[in-house]
Amino acid sequence: MDNLFKEAFEKIKESNNIVLISHINPDGDALGSSLSMYPVLKRMGKKVTIFNATKPLPEYLDFLPNFNKVTDKLPKNFDLMISFDCGSFDRLGIEKKTAFLINFDHHISNTEYGDINIIDPNAASTSQVVYNFCKSNGIDIDKESATCMYTALITDTGSFQYESVNDKVFEMAADMVRCGVEPAYVSKMLFQRDRLSRLRLLAKAYETIEMCCDGRVAFVEVTREMMEITGAIKEDTDTIVNSVRAIAPVEIAAMLREDEDGIKISLRSKNYADVSKIAVKYGGGGHIRAAGATLKGEFDFSKVKEMLKKDFQNLLKGDK
Amino acid sequence: MDNLFKEAFEKIKESNNIVLISHINPDGDALGSSLSMYPVLKRMGKKVTIFNATKPLPEYLDFLPNFNKVTDKLPKNFDLMISFDCGSFDRLGIEKKTAFLINFDHHISNTEYGDINIIDPNAASTSQVVYNFCKSNGIDIDKESATCMYTALITDTGSFQYESVNDKVFEMAADMVRCGVEPAYVSKMLFQRDRLSRLRLLAKAYETIEMCCDGRVAFVEVTREMMEITGAIKEDTDTIVNSVRAIAPVEIAAMLREDEDGIKISLRSKNYADVSKIAVKYGGGGHIRAAGATLKGEFDFSKVKEMLKKDFQNLLKGDK
Repeated sequence: MDNLFKEAFEKIKESNNIVLISHINPDGDALGSSLSMYPVLKRMGKKVTIFNATKPLPEYLDFLPNFNKVTDKLPKNFDLMISFDCGSFDRLGIEKKTAFLINFDHHISNTEYGDINIIDPNAASTSQVVYNFCKSNGIDIDKESATCMYTALITDTGSFQYESVNDKVFEMAADMVRCGVEPAYVSKMLFQRDRLSRLRLLAKAYETIEMCCDGRVAFVEVTREMMEITGAIKEDTDTIVNSVRAIAPVEIAAMLREDEDGIKISLRSKNYADVSKIAVKYGGGGHIRAAGATLKGEFDFSKVKEMLKKDFQNLLKGDK
Repeated sequence: MDNLFKEAFEKIKESNNIVLISHINPDGDALGSSLSMYPVLKRMGKKVTIFNATKPLPEYLDFLPNFNKVTDKLPKNFDLMISFDCGSFDRLGIEKKTAFLINFDHHISNTEYGDINIIDPNAASTSQVVYNFCKSNGIDIDKESATCMYTALITDTGSFQYESVNDKVFEMAADMVRCGVEPAYVSKMLFQRDRLSRLRLLAKAYETIEMCCDGRVAFVEVTREMMEITGAIKEDTDTIVNSVRAIAPVEIAAMLREDEDGIKISLRSKNYADVSKIAVKYGGGGHIRAAGATLKGEFDFSKVKEMLKKDFQNLLKGDK
């Protein structure tokens, strides 16, 4: 890894006009990692563009230093592009590769579309890869960079709760504090700016929770009517299925949401079930523990549930 | 602090029959800290009793190593008592002090009721004080101790989100992992064993959210009827007022709960309001950001709200 870090740094040094790019529909790690490099490159005297194709950007990340410098317009000329947290080229939101590309990521599925690919699947976040890059090259991390790296780290670990959390993650967090990060401030920005509409939606949705398969499966519904009554936006539905999975005996949680084009199914599993198999069956995809699909057309919640119940029973067959 | 650590360790070495004690209605830090010392003292060949006066103990902590060794019976004879996370003698749940007492705590309000008082208000948890005690005396921390210390740390910091979190906290967490802690396992035990009754109660309670004072104040209600319909227990109401405080503009959140003996008021503030003042006015108490009181007798939710609204308006007067 150290050789790759050195190679990438040399390339950066000899470049002048650099574009930082993160995947479409960016999360905290994508935006945080790309923004964390901005102060580093500015200090080196580079011309820097922070690009993301999505508009508008997620509001909950608006406290990140230099957030307002993110643009959806690519500059005419640039000699280096650095991508962050993006598993495949098509998620960069650009038509074609027109410059040398350094690809920072931590997804094992990364397709290595860059000229230099710095992929560490053992890292808890892409920001941890960027952090290691900085440390390896003796690059100073200022408070702005550290705040972005730290935000990326806690959004990608659920505030230090996921399997990826180990001693290296906590050592990085300690170092982020020494670089000036105020952990409570970041947590407040991320978790204490909730919307009333979201709580109102939870109230409606939680009423619909239905347990089956001896409590190992739970369904929850979000109808268009609920969204209208509560004034909720799609983002407000984000955590519902996770909260339902958190019920003690539940192994698989499924949220059914009435969308414009059909029924969106969000699947989560807790310990062993591979819900990506079910998602793929319905034309969707995802990970073992978090996957989803959209059933296009006219469907009935109760019929979809019956269908999924059978899938889940098969999936859980033979399990404890 | 190092001298106190040494003095306490000497006292432990010369004692044979030791009682570990934590405050009544224990939280993760109280139980976790006291349980973390059990393997240490057993390795030293001591007879150890883990005492807590509360029965039953909170179920969500039942995964802590040696949890089933906690007893509400004091032994007849013992020559040393070590208390954890307990601010005053009366919260130990024992009648009188009958042995030498070492008092480990991190509450600034600790009344120093021990013979040796090891109080560090800068520590994020009492388990951090115990950790420092172990490090200072070269005491090995095994996986069981570390799991208890880590649980104490994350319950008392809201999974690394509170003001108390700094580089030392993260360094301790890193060390806990090196001692064998699996962070994701602890988080799963704490946060992924939710009750359906709790979600059902949230559904009812969130329907009652009422905003006032330009959105800076929010009320939420929990009636006896809601508890009965949903089958919820008192513990299920624990996080409601925190979730309501998390709404973006809210500075003060108040939960009103119908109890057997009156109306329990739980108050939270986000950034600047000192809600303990209001709690004290109604015969309760607490901290600046989290306080509570019980209005005994027959009351009407709407009247209590009117009353509190005036208090909050006074409290917020002149603020931004």
